[in-house]
Amino acid sequence: MPPNSIASEGQTSVSVELFREAMSRLGAPVTVVTTDGAAGRQGLTVSAITSVSDTPATVLVCINRSNRSHEAFRRNGVAGINILGHGHDGVAGIFASSRRSPAEKFASGLWRIGKTGAPLLEDAAVTLDCVIEDIRPSGTHDVLFCAVRDIAINDKIAVGLAWCGRAFHHLPFAPLTAPLKVRDTVP
Amino acid sequence: MPPNSIASEGQTSVSVELFREAMSRLGAPVTVVTTDGAAGRQGLTVSAITSVSDTPATVLVCINRSNRSHEAFRRNGVAGINILGHGHDGVAGIFASSRRSPAEKFASGLWRIGKTGAPLLEDAAVTLDCVIEDIRPSGTHDVLFCAVRDIAINDKIAVGLAWCGRAFHHLPFAPLTAPLKVRDTVP
Repeated sequence: MPPNSIASEGQTSVSVELFREAMSRLGAPVTVVTTDGAAGRQGLTVSAITSVSDTPATVLVCINRSNRSHEAFRRNGVAGINILGHGHDGVAGIFASSRRSPAEKFASGLWRIGKTGAPLLEDAAVTLDCVIEDIRPSGTHDVLFCAVRDIAINDKIAVGLAWCGRAFHHLPFAPLTAPLKVRDTVP
Repeated sequence: MPPNSIASEGQTSVSVELFREAMSRLGAPVTVVTTDGAAGRQGLTVSAITSVSDTPATVLVCINRSNRSHEAFRRNGVAGINILGHGHDGVAGIFASSRRSPAEKFASGLWRIGKTGAPLLEDAAVTLDCVIEDIRPSGTHDVLFCAVRDIAINDKIAVGLAWCGRAFHHLPFAPLTAPLKVRDTVP
C-alpha cells in the first residue's frame, strides 16, 4: 500500500462512501440526456456515459432507476445525448436538479427535435440522436445501450466540459486538421 | 441545425469517421486496466470506463475484442482498474501501445498484487480491485461489468488525468473536507 492512502483493505466490503470518493477522481464528461415520445419529455444531466463501439456506432448511458426520468427512457426507446461545452455549466446544473419538472428544465436552452423525436440542444458541442437498443440492469442503475442514428458536431464550440473532483473543468478540443469526408454543412 | 455544424443528417447511416470525431469531444478519464491469472498478465490503457452503481459498487469497462489483452480478461475473470493522475502520461502511452508485450508494459511503473490477483499501480490516484461479474458484447467491444472488491485512494495525488480532443488534460481533485468514515490509513 502506498503511504497517505485511504483504503478498503481490512474491511469486509467496499462502502458506498469510499466508492463515491474514488469515483469523484475519475474525470468524466458532462452531458444532458433527453427523451420524448408517448411517455413524455424528460431529461437529466449524466456523467456516466461512454463510447462503446464505432461499428455500429454505440454509446452507453447509466441512469438510476429511482430517477423520475427513468421510466420515460424505457418507454420512449429513444435518447438525445447532448455533449456540453464551455458555457453550459448552467444548463448542466438545471438538468441535474431532481426537484425541477421537465417543463422547467427545458425552458433552459434552445431545443430542436431529432429524427428519433429526442430533444437536441441547439448549441451543444455534439448531439447524438439515438435509439435505445438494449437495457441492462446493474445494481441501482440501468445501462442503456444507445445506437447512434444521427450526429451533429458544432464546430464553433472549441472547449468541452468535464466533471472531476466535484467541479467543472474546461477542456479545449483539438482543431480539425482536415475536413471530415462525411459532412453536410448546413448554412 | 446550428451553423458551422458537421452532421450526418441526409446520410443513410453514421460513419465511423464522424462518430470518432464526435467521441473525441467527450471528456474521458484515463485508466490502465490490468488482469492476471491462469491466462497470464495483460494490461491496456482504457478511457471507455464509467461508474455504474454504488450499491453494490460496480464500474464498467469497454474492451475491443480484437485487443490482444481481451482473452486474458475473459479467462482470468479479474480486473485491476488504475485511475491515473498528473505525471502518468508516460504510463498511459506505454499501455496504449498494441505493439508492446505485457512484460514491456509492466516494466513501467511499480506494481503490487490486489486481493483478486490483479496488478495495481502503486502510485495511481485510485486503484479498484475488481471481479468481472458479467460480460456483454456490443459491436466490436465487450462491456465488462466489474464488481469492486477493494479500493485504495492515494491522497498524495491531487491532480487527475483526462483525455479530450486527442490530448491529455490535468484536472485538480477537490480536497477532502472531512475524513471518510471508512478508512484504513497505512503508514
